[in-house]
Amino acid sequence: MTDWTSRFAARGQALKPSAIRATAKFAEQPGAISFASGSPNPSLFPYDAITQAMTAIMADPRRRGEALQYGASEGYRPLREFIERYLRDAGAQVALDMITVTNGSQQALEFLAKLFVEPGDRIVVTNPTYLGALQAFGLFEPVYACVPTHQAGIDLEALEREFSQGAKFMYLMPDFGNPSGITLSLEERLKVLELSRRHKVLIVEDQAYEQLRFAPKALPSMPALDTSHPAGSSGRSTVNVIHAGTFSKSLVPGLRVGWVVAPPAVTQKLVSIKQASDLHGGQLNQMIVHDVATAILRDHTERLRGAYRRRRDLMLRALARHMPQEVAWNEPGGGMFVWLSLPAPLDAAELQMRAIRDENVVFVPGAPFFADSSGKATLRLSFSSVAEDAIAPGIERLARAVRAAMAAEGEAAPVAAARARSP
Amino acid sequence: MTDWTSRFAARGQALKPSAIRATAKFAEQPGAISFASGSPNPSLFPYDAITQAMTAIMADPRRRGEALQYGASEGYRPLREFIERYLRDAGAQVALDMITVTNGSQQALEFLAKLFVEPGDRIVVTNPTYLGALQAFGLFEPVYACVPTHQAGIDLEALEREFSQGAKFMYLMPDFGNPSGITLSLEERLKVLELSRRHKVLIVEDQAYEQLRFAPKALPSMPALDTSHPAGSSGRSTVNVIHAGTFSKSLVPGLRVGWVVAPPAVTQKLVSIKQASDLHGGQLNQMIVHDVATAILRDHTERLRGAYRRRRDLMLRALARHMPQEVAWNEPGGGMFVWLSLPAPLDAAELQMRAIRDENVVFVPGAPFFADSSGKATLRLSFSSVAEDAIAPGIERLARAVRAAMAAEGEAAPVAAARARSP
Repeated sequence: MTDWTSRFAARGQALKPSAIRATAKFAEQPGAISFASGSPNPSLFPYDAITQAMTAIMADPRRRGEALQYGASEGYRPLREFIERYLRDAGAQVALDMITVTNGSQQALEFLAKLFVEPGDRIVVTNPTYLGALQAFGLFEPVYACVPTHQAGIDLEALEREFSQGAKFMYLMPDFGNPSGITLSLEERLKVLELSRRHKVLIVEDQAYEQLRFAPKALPSMPALDTSHPAGSSGRSTVNVIHAGTFSKSLVPGLRVGWVVAPPAVTQKLVSIKQASDLHGGQLNQMIVHDVATAILRDHTERLRGAYRRRRDLMLRALARHMPQEVAWNEPGGGMFVWLSLPAPLDAAELQMRAIRDENVVFVPGAPFFADSSGKATLRLSFSSVAEDAIAPGIERLARAVRAAMAAEGEAAPVAAARARSP
Repeated sequence: MTDWTSRFAARGQALKPSAIRATAKFAEQPGAISFASGSPNPSLFPYDAITQAMTAIMADPRRRGEALQYGASEGYRPLREFIERYLRDAGAQVALDMITVTNGSQQALEFLAKLFVEPGDRIVVTNPTYLGALQAFGLFEPVYACVPTHQAGIDLEALEREFSQGAKFMYLMPDFGNPSGITLSLEERLKVLELSRRHKVLIVEDQAYEQLRFAPKALPSMPALDTSHPAGSSGRSTVNVIHAGTFSKSLVPGLRVGWVVAPPAVTQKLVSIKQASDLHGGQLNQMIVHDVATAILRDHTERLRGAYRRRRDLMLRALARHMPQEVAWNEPGGGMFVWLSLPAPLDAAELQMRAIRDENVVFVPGAPFFADSSGKATLRLSFSSVAEDAIAPGIERLARAVRAAMAAEGEAAPVAAARARSP
């Protein structure tokens, strides 16, 4: 009778189940309104284009064999060529030998940590940051250096302080990331790149939401800015940005197709890691994504932007109307999330329990998105999947829960204040 | 200008491209006969059943949404239930909370190393063993303890010696594994389990080829033997075998659907690892595999066995007819591979170059399958993908190359013998 759990490696011992996953069951209660899910809205999936693509692939005797056989670890070549064109059109000087297809951008993050991170290595992240990145990196036992963000972007002084102490890389979502919805300005992007070069800290850019921007014109991506800078022009392998992207938000997540762009010498290693990790990505899935993206990506993302923008506007209007003035939030320029800050002593995890119990409304508390476990008075609201006509009533319910929590806190406050005064 | 390659973690520095992959280009030369590919034969893929399944899924408004959305990290529940039934029918006492769906069995191997292996930990492997397992485990910097195999199975004395020194786990393909094609007898299986319990070494069983057996009745799998033993009957978490399987050989590899079965406490960690690594497996793929496996797996594997057995017999007949008597090989009880031993001083890597150059016939040398880089006089022949009428001519060509190599060695031998005699 051997207890195998005592034999886990340190990285295995440290693994914890997702805090967010635990809230999913509350969203399924009758009458619940949920702002918790970070999933794209399935009513916006391009079903017809996907069905057409897979039907055509399976009707072609050559392609159907390729779709179901083992494939190349670096990915389906026509899809890699599509990604190359897509990124070049956005101004990034990428080449085919810099592109690896991954199972969503999540796998790209795990591969980069696997390739670069030794136990104790420093990784710079923003506060808050994507929980899935913390989970992927966490397997390789890094130490996190946390840089605060604010409504307008990132704390550059704190960033410089952390960079000057050295780090393997910085993980960054410059465009309306999960969970904060913040957009880095052009000036901030250039400054991050400058600090990256000066302190030799690699930038890992996660552009999972970039295609869901609401502004008519995109800000330049980090690789686009990086390769156009003189320091990067002497050769592709000198670039300071590794870029991860995905079709999970612009098409569908269930096919698990994303990518990572890195200098060729890094890409060679990533391809070996892909082979060792799961041989290669699903062939049929990559072929479907290639065919569908080629046919409709531009028009389809245009449609998605309109739909998500309308939902964001409904949420922002409802917040302005119902929330007490002590609550602050941002106006995301794209993506799926609005980020709320509660008045200081309020705990979002307690508010979550109250909101579920008293108002049947669900959200995700902010603390799990902070690598240093701060952020207890923050929370994430998703507008992607909730029914449009449920947004205003849901926010109204949430505001009632916030007021109730503030009132309860107010009753408790004199006691706490009295305690604080005692010696 | 930062050289990111100097920043790789030790595991990244150690990664090497696959030695087998380099031979693929020779197989594409005009007129080449290749015994190199380890891929299943695409003419045997169940195209109609797969097309029917995907068409039905995409025609169902509820199922198509599920197929393209984010899914559960542990896998699509009906597929996990199918795997549970499949393994129970084979005598293994598994339960649903012991099953995680992975991207082929390759990902299961990588997850197990990720969960259990610290740098310097010992892993016991057979000589030869599956190259992909060495690649997956290698990321976590183990030390390999190699146990010789012979025509009839595994060297149990060497195994006991290695187990008595302790190890995190032993990796084992008991049924006609890649590359050796060897089958462990019932007595050997029971002995391995007994040693596993006595020395507290976990067994990781990889059953990737088990469904392709040629005998009418299967030998009991390691988990079936493990849970039926009194030591395992007091509770599921005491079992000493973790089992990995896949639909890559019984259906198709391009959908990347496999599984891992482990005690519940280990499975909880594996699910967290799945989430951190790539969130979850392709939803559509899992649903297709579920529907197709439910409809045709039994009949389809029956058909595959007949087809692969016919190819094996053609290869064995051709070997008996053409090979010089100094060459030895096994008669695999299933799978896709025959394993050859050349007369002592011959180097299979040199023979490979000669065979490609002089005879336009391709195979894979054995050395990459040996964790200690021995096995230079061995090679792997695959009978899965080569055209049936090319098997005998291909073996004839290979035998000519072997004779030519032996003759060249014979000419060189007196010199070597003279050297050996000199003081």
